[in-house]
Amino acid sequence: VTTGCAPRLELRALPGLPVVSAGDDLGEVIAAAMARAEVAAGDGDVIVVASKLVSRAEGRFVDLATVDPSPRARELAAVTGHDPRHVEVIVRDAAAVSRAARGVLVVRHRLGFVVANGGVDRSNVGADDRVLVLPTDPDASAARLRARLGVAGVVISDSFGRPFRLGTVGAAIGVAGLPPLWDQRGRRDLFGRRLDATVTALADQVAAAADLVAGQADEGRGAVLVRGLRFDPGDGGAAALLRPADADLYA
Amino acid sequence: VTTGCAPRLELRALPGLPVVSAGDDLGEVIAAAMARAEVAAGDGDVIVVASKLVSRAEGRFVDLATVDPSPRARELAAVTGHDPRHVEVIVRDAAAVSRAARGVLVVRHRLGFVVANGGVDRSNVGADDRVLVLPTDPDASAARLRARLGVAGVVISDSFGRPFRLGTVGAAIGVAGLPPLWDQRGRRDLFGRRLDATVTALADQVAAAADLVAGQADEGRGAVLVRGLRFDPGDGGAAALLRPADADLYA
Repeated sequence: VTTGCAPRLELRALPGLPVVSAGDDLGEVIAAAMARAEVAAGDGDVIVVASKLVSRAEGRFVDLATVDPSPRARELAAVTGHDPRHVEVIVRDAAAVSRAARGVLVVRHRLGFVVANGGVDRSNVGADDRVLVLPTDPDASAARLRARLGVAGVVISDSFGRPFRLGTVGAAIGVAGLPPLWDQRGRRDLFGRRLDATVTALADQVAAAADLVAGQADEGRGAVLVRGLRFDPGDGGAAALLRPADADLYA
Repeated sequence: VTTGCAPRLELRALPGLPVVSAGDDLGEVIAAAMARAEVAAGDGDVIVVASKLVSRAEGRFVDLATVDPSPRARELAAVTGHDPRHVEVIVRDAAAVSRAARGVLVVRHRLGFVVANGGVDRSNVGADDRVLVLPTDPDASAARLRARLGVAGVVISDSFGRPFRLGTVGAAIGVAGLPPLWDQRGRRDLFGRRLDATVTALADQVAAAADLVAGQADEGRGAVLVRGLRFDPGDGGAAALLRPADADLYA
């Protein structure tokens, strides 16, 4: 196999996922869903897991009643109009603020992703005063799930907004087993010209495709089987997808 | 049908597409490929077509030998290090320059997309001194193809770079028949909370998914059937995906 285009790709939401709670063994939960769907791990299969499921299993809830906003959080809350306790949770895990304005707080997370509200989620956590933060180490979570499920690759996905364009798209925040980027620079085009600048964000596109079947609110559909991809095993994590801040004209 | 998640999605590159030339009837070319694959248009089928195929059929080649760079193009060529004639072709169709630096020229195209090199393509055009520019009216091209092919939706896709993250992802530059954005704001999450800010870039995610099977260099795989999406017919074009420049903190 060489990393390349799949001529045919199939995506299926694994059925019957329960609501995941802190301490649940997510590998067991997903393995059971695969068994229910009579999916045996096949050659090149990738499982895309919504980051919310990983965060819930890891118990990454923060009760806002316990949060004491710092002066910096209060400042940013005044600018954005957000709850200062919510902002405090965001800035705790932020390496830098990218943009702050009315209703908008975009940060560079300590994991390197530039993401609105630091990926801190107020929906689907079951209570108004709890928020859910990103998994501690999404690449490690992806690697553990990959080993447990016996699949070729695992992507931990989240839904990100982006500059210039409206709407969210799936993006990879954890990657195991597949190359995050597919580098086609050595290839030649139809006319034999070398392609100069063609690096595809493979793992992000897999996350975006999976989002079409997983949806956002439906945690019950937060694990998606992607069958038919072609790739060489890759050991890079999601950081391979990040443009260094000093090389980013939009940082 | 209500727009929502597909529980199962299938993507197939239509086989045997020839190299498309100026004046070719792209609808006929794709219809023939569907027939070869024994694909009859099904309920909810979407065809994703690489913008290069549309541009080639429309004869959107520019011979750089005929291009006389303006002073503005020469200025930007000095900044970026690009061929001044290539820059001239880019700025002719640009509404604004977003960023210019060594090796980088990002513009807002007259169609509204913020895109590196204005979407002007130097690869796969068959000769070193020709470039290929974006289709004249991608939404209209999508609508014509949709009518000809009898499918529910057509997306004209291109591969875009983006701030913060490396690698290109498929993006929709022309849309017919499906809602470009899927607005879930009226829905409720698993716990009955109303979702506040959940609008998915449906057409962009469809383009990203299709790119996994189409690849970038392989024009022979530039038409992809996406089967299994659920959506209400939509009549918005790709402009629905564009954040207004004055509401964009990264413009």
